[in-house]
Amino acid sequence: MELLYKGKTKDIYKGEDGNLVLQFKDDVTGVDGHFDPGANQVGLSIEGVGKENLKMSKFFFEKLKENNISTHYISADIENNTMVVKQAKVFGKGVEVICRYKAVGSFIRRYGLYAKEGMKLPAYTEITLKDDERNDPLITKDALSILNILDNEEYNMIVGLTKDISGIIKRELEKKGLTLYDIKLEFGKLDNGEIVLIDELSGGNMRVYKGDEYIDPMELGKYLF
Amino acid sequence: MELLYKGKTKDIYKGEDGNLVLQFKDDVTGVDGHFDPGANQVGLSIEGVGKENLKMSKFFFEKLKENNISTHYISADIENNTMVVKQAKVFGKGVEVICRYKAVGSFIRRYGLYAKEGMKLPAYTEITLKDDERNDPLITKDALSILNILDNEEYNMIVGLTKDISGIIKRELEKKGLTLYDIKLEFGKLDNGEIVLIDELSGGNMRVYKGDEYIDPMELGKYLF
Repeated sequence: MELLYKGKTKDIYKGEDGNLVLQFKDDVTGVDGHFDPGANQVGLSIEGVGKENLKMSKFFFEKLKENNISTHYISADIENNTMVVKQAKVFGKGVEVICRYKAVGSFIRRYGLYAKEGMKLPAYTEITLKDDERNDPLITKDALSILNILDNEEYNMIVGLTKDISGIIKRELEKKGLTLYDIKLEFGKLDNGEIVLIDELSGGNMRVYKGDEYIDPMELGKYLF
Repeated sequence: MELLYKGKTKDIYKGEDGNLVLQFKDDVTGVDGHFDPGANQVGLSIEGVGKENLKMSKFFFEKLKENNISTHYISADIENNTMVVKQAKVFGKGVEVICRYKAVGSFIRRYGLYAKEGMKLPAYTEITLKDDERNDPLITKDALSILNILDNEEYNMIVGLTKDISGIIKRELEKKGLTLYDIKLEFGKLDNGEIVLIDELSGGNMRVYKGDEYIDPMELGKYLF
């Protein structure tokens, strides 16, 4: 298979049928040797983390399928740490869509003058640009349109999909006694123009709590399976 | 008169008729002794700057009045460096509304991956929170509503007013051969519920160019009067 892209936590190959094969690796993002799913550098390697993230992605992508949500997911091979997905084009150079149920992290760093840590938010959805150099800046609907990253129709579609998808994941976690605080999603466009969820869906995408206790993304699988 | 507030560049007094009296001072914001209208600390004092800002505010507020735009402005006393204004309540702890015609400053710092310095923008309007400690963070329409700072109706009204006001100021500057790159406005609510432009309207609120040359805010008056 042809290697298309060497990523921070996954390599991407072109499959023979035109689909993509994502190879999950044991590298995780972090700073100074500490795991941090929001960090932009690979900080360390943890044995088994690739498989763990693939198992969780498989679990959530299949749940979404049961709920008639289209994603890029086709199949997963847990033994070989690979996931087969449809090819999709990202918007601009990539955007991240964050859905928030409780105020933590960058929301508090930005809006701490008004928001209290842990305050309830109504699936508040916002978009940031994937841009390591500029620390993934927040961007408005109007600026996304002006910069030809997302037009208003695509923006509305993505925000709607984000609230649907995040709600499904939130309810899955609730079944296990867990609370979803926030989640980060990525979207792409298929050849037929359909907008679908892409990338992975694992502990690193979301902040999950059990009561007041933050669940380490690496421990999340123990609660789910 | 009762002193209500000692500001960075203006002091505010309560007038006898219930209106406010703004006393323009010669302190300007800046960092390390350099004038920077966007800075959050008072950096130095320049003789005559208060009077200069008041003259320009009077000029623009009266232009807006001719164009039937309501503002908090009542009158100006150039000799005594004071402006009488209607009392208005700010939104939350204060927001700044930025209208951009050319991409410079924080727009490029945030979106430099997509935008080129000086690129044309269609009166792109965005809102930041007045919060020195958090470097005046950008905030979306949805977050403004969730945090009870601006509801959607107020947001739409303020964005509409901003585009009107900025357009009038842009055209006034064009008459003098000057180009408005961006401008920062503040709004408040009068007792009767009307949303109006507040604060001052001087060189420190706007970035103005003559051709490719940036005009120092302190020099702007020479072109206007």
